[in-house]
Amino acid sequence: MLKPLMNFTGGLAAALLVMSAQATALKQEDISVAEVLRDRALESSDAYSHVESLTVEVGPRRAGTKGDERAVAWAQQKMKDLGFDRVYTEQIDVKRWARGHAHAEVTAPFPQPLVVTSLGYGASTPEGGLTAEIVEFADVDALLKAPARKVKGKIAFINKRMERARTGEGYGPAAAGRSKGMRAAAEKGAAALLLRSVGTDSDRFAHTGMMSVDGVENPVPALALSAPDANLLEAMLKRGKPVQVKLNVHNEALADGPSFNVIGEVVGREKPEEVVIIGAHLDSWDEGTGALDDGAGVAVVMETARLIAELPQRPRRTLRVVLFGAEEIGLVGAKQYVDAHANDLEKIIMVSESDFGAGKIWRFDTRIPESKFAIADQMMQLLAPLGIKRGDNKASGGPDGSVFVAQGVPAMTLHQDGTDYFDYHHTPNDTLDKVDPENLKQNVAAWVVMSFLATEMDGDFGRVSTEH
Amino acid sequence: MLKPLMNFTGGLAAALLVMSAQATALKQEDISVAEVLRDRALESSDAYSHVESLTVEVGPRRAGTKGDERAVAWAQQKMKDLGFDRVYTEQIDVKRWARGHAHAEVTAPFPQPLVVTSLGYGASTPEGGLTAEIVEFADVDALLKAPARKVKGKIAFINKRMERARTGEGYGPAAAGRSKGMRAAAEKGAAALLLRSVGTDSDRFAHTGMMSVDGVENPVPALALSAPDANLLEAMLKRGKPVQVKLNVHNEALADGPSFNVIGEVVGREKPEEVVIIGAHLDSWDEGTGALDDGAGVAVVMETARLIAELPQRPRRTLRVVLFGAEEIGLVGAKQYVDAHANDLEKIIMVSESDFGAGKIWRFDTRIPESKFAIADQMMQLLAPLGIKRGDNKASGGPDGSVFVAQGVPAMTLHQDGTDYFDYHHTPNDTLDKVDPENLKQNVAAWVVMSFLATEMDGDFGRVSTEH
Repeated sequence: MLKPLMNFTGGLAAALLVMSAQATALKQEDISVAEVLRDRALESSDAYSHVESLTVEVGPRRAGTKGDERAVAWAQQKMKDLGFDRVYTEQIDVKRWARGHAHAEVTAPFPQPLVVTSLGYGASTPEGGLTAEIVEFADVDALLKAPARKVKGKIAFINKRMERARTGEGYGPAAAGRSKGMRAAAEKGAAALLLRSVGTDSDRFAHTGMMSVDGVENPVPALALSAPDANLLEAMLKRGKPVQVKLNVHNEALADGPSFNVIGEVVGREKPEEVVIIGAHLDSWDEGTGALDDGAGVAVVMETARLIAELPQRPRRTLRVVLFGAEEIGLVGAKQYVDAHANDLEKIIMVSESDFGAGKIWRFDTRIPESKFAIADQMMQLLAPLGIKRGDNKASGGPDGSVFVAQGVPAMTLHQDGTDYFDYHHTPNDTLDKVDPENLKQNVAAWVVMSFLATEMDGDFGRVSTEH
Repeated sequence: MLKPLMNFTGGLAAALLVMSAQATALKQEDISVAEVLRDRALESSDAYSHVESLTVEVGPRRAGTKGDERAVAWAQQKMKDLGFDRVYTEQIDVKRWARGHAHAEVTAPFPQPLVVTSLGYGASTPEGGLTAEIVEFADVDALLKAPARKVKGKIAFINKRMERARTGEGYGPAAAGRSKGMRAAAEKGAAALLLRSVGTDSDRFAHTGMMSVDGVENPVPALALSAPDANLLEAMLKRGKPVQVKLNVHNEALADGPSFNVIGEVVGREKPEEVVIIGAHLDSWDEGTGALDDGAGVAVVMETARLIAELPQRPRRTLRVVLFGAEEIGLVGAKQYVDAHANDLEKIIMVSESDFGAGKIWRFDTRIPESKFAIADQMMQLLAPLGIKRGDNKASGGPDGSVFVAQGVPAMTLHQDGTDYFDYHHTPNDTLDKVDPENLKQNVAAWVVMSFLATEMDGDFGRVSTEH
């Protein structure tokens, strides 16, 4: 019989906490409005139709391509149609690159084709291709430690598997091979890099993605292999004979060109100069239609703002939706945004980005002063019924958001379940069918609570620590 | 307290059934040996290592290609290594074809690339490609019924979805579009055929496969679209504007050439001229490594025979493993086998083929005289503990086996669970990682029971009805 009593005490404590928080943070009337917005999102949000529209009517939109241009036009028109008060673009400069072909095949001892794709901004082989023996490394560190004579003239094969996790925490260790592998291979005189895809699937898709190319003197072709093809090379190598691979790759580095951050605002009624930024990135990789990465995020933040714009009055502060350009090729849009707005960053009350697919949100992180935790606690009252638990105070704000956090801008992160995200990430298989409309509704419900209350709250979060 | 009594009665009835069956069919000592073989298979069968070897050391092996040649050499060597008494090949003639490239893209109103693959033996576009409007049909029957003016000069798009089922029964209705679609499109003056892939996945792989090309006067390019790409066209069409697609396809029809059925025998000790055929097909489609289709089947029947060859004595009859050539392009190896052996078919006691992936076996069908059902019942005593239930008496014997059944040869079919089979079937994604080693052990356990007892039984099944 102890349990009900404890529950009662807990309930009482919670009620007291709410009362105390209300006194210092959010008004009950705003919480009530947020609750209505949340429930409206769960019933009728249109986020799925936005991502459907983007993937069907635009599709692939790598920064600096024609698809990117179409995406910029699409985003402006869509935000106008959705009733935003202001819609505008800000130009950014992007490095451009044209993907050509990428063929690979084992020529000996067991000839058969391999499924590969060029990593972003990768080099070409000589005309007609190149053939060399492969040499396997457990990870990029093993390649970095290897003597050059072991690698010279060969194809370095990094065979690191990525671990599956809801948080996506396996990504960093595996992606190190992608970001640093080509440079390491080139510096040791390798003929090329073959990288087991940074992904958690076992489908015959290679996962593309960005690598560090700046300042590499003699860049070599760098290709991701699908997981089954990496298994194949591994199995051939176990048989003890040298494995020869032929690569034939053509890509083109192009002159720099323009892209755009696309921005839509619901202008604040009391403090229009104070801004809550909710973001996503508009660009995608070029082999899928960018449904999960990051069409879903674009849809969620657009729909969040639409629901708020439908209220009878504007929120106190301005809600600014920023669809960043060129995220995939190095957070280019976010970096140039922060540079261009260096003098306005203090007016950004909070930043948050949706860029982790379309899974259910399960955790709410913040990066705010501890003295303001009552606000997050009040948000949690509306988030908890959505299956969301309170996380830590080390919110990154998302990839583009992290660029703002590095300048001291407070941030929040609504973590999506990323268990399956890296099955599709940066592959041709990132398509609309991978998006569950019900999950998107839950996402919008959480986003609208966080976003609306951040625009309405008394006071602000000041600046925050930029430490990890 | 009723239940234990009922169980006892059931057990008694089963025991009586066994005694009566033993009198007319299988000897208890053979059943005991079969049980040992079954349990050995469950513990230590090497089927997985056979399919690993085939996929790693040979890989794709479409009939009439270099890969096919390597597969034929591999199969002979492997069967010799496994201790078969006789290993030999029988030449067959196959139509040959070289797959070139297949590119497709929507050019208007929403330009973006599509993932496609040529159906087997498909034609090319004119140099430089062709661009035409697509016109959608629910299935091939709708195309067949359409007036030619609706199709002429356009790309016929058959958008039939395949139903998922353990039995694979959704395959026939969907595959009709593949087998008959190009002919129908060509006869109505279409520019080309685009077919929603015959498959149950939602991955961005197009499923290739055979179509009827003989006697089509003006064959047109015929391409399978991945499911997400078919969804994309469907979504574009719903927006009401004409959808233009550009196709650029190159393939080459080649002169006929040789391939081979590869045959290995464990020769019978008493009636060597009487034969039980267990088969699989050695060829595969060319975009995957043919792990499920039909490397797994090859491995299962090879391992079945190996286990039997390890016994202290040879079985009464000959166990003949036939690895059919050119199954994928029209059961060519089986048809030529039956033609070449027309006079020996009476000596084939039973035929069975494994060609439905690597799922667990769940059902045992026969095509034998009802008077011999006691034999199947006795087999079931050893199969039931493997999770297998008795099916009907309409066994097809498998795709190649059905060619024998059409000549009155008795057949058995051990049905695999095909729930996922058509997720991978005829795609680049048919690779070793899709094969579960534990499932293969269960397969071999069932096959060794059926095969061994068929070689040992008293009497035979005579000839059977060829009706479906």
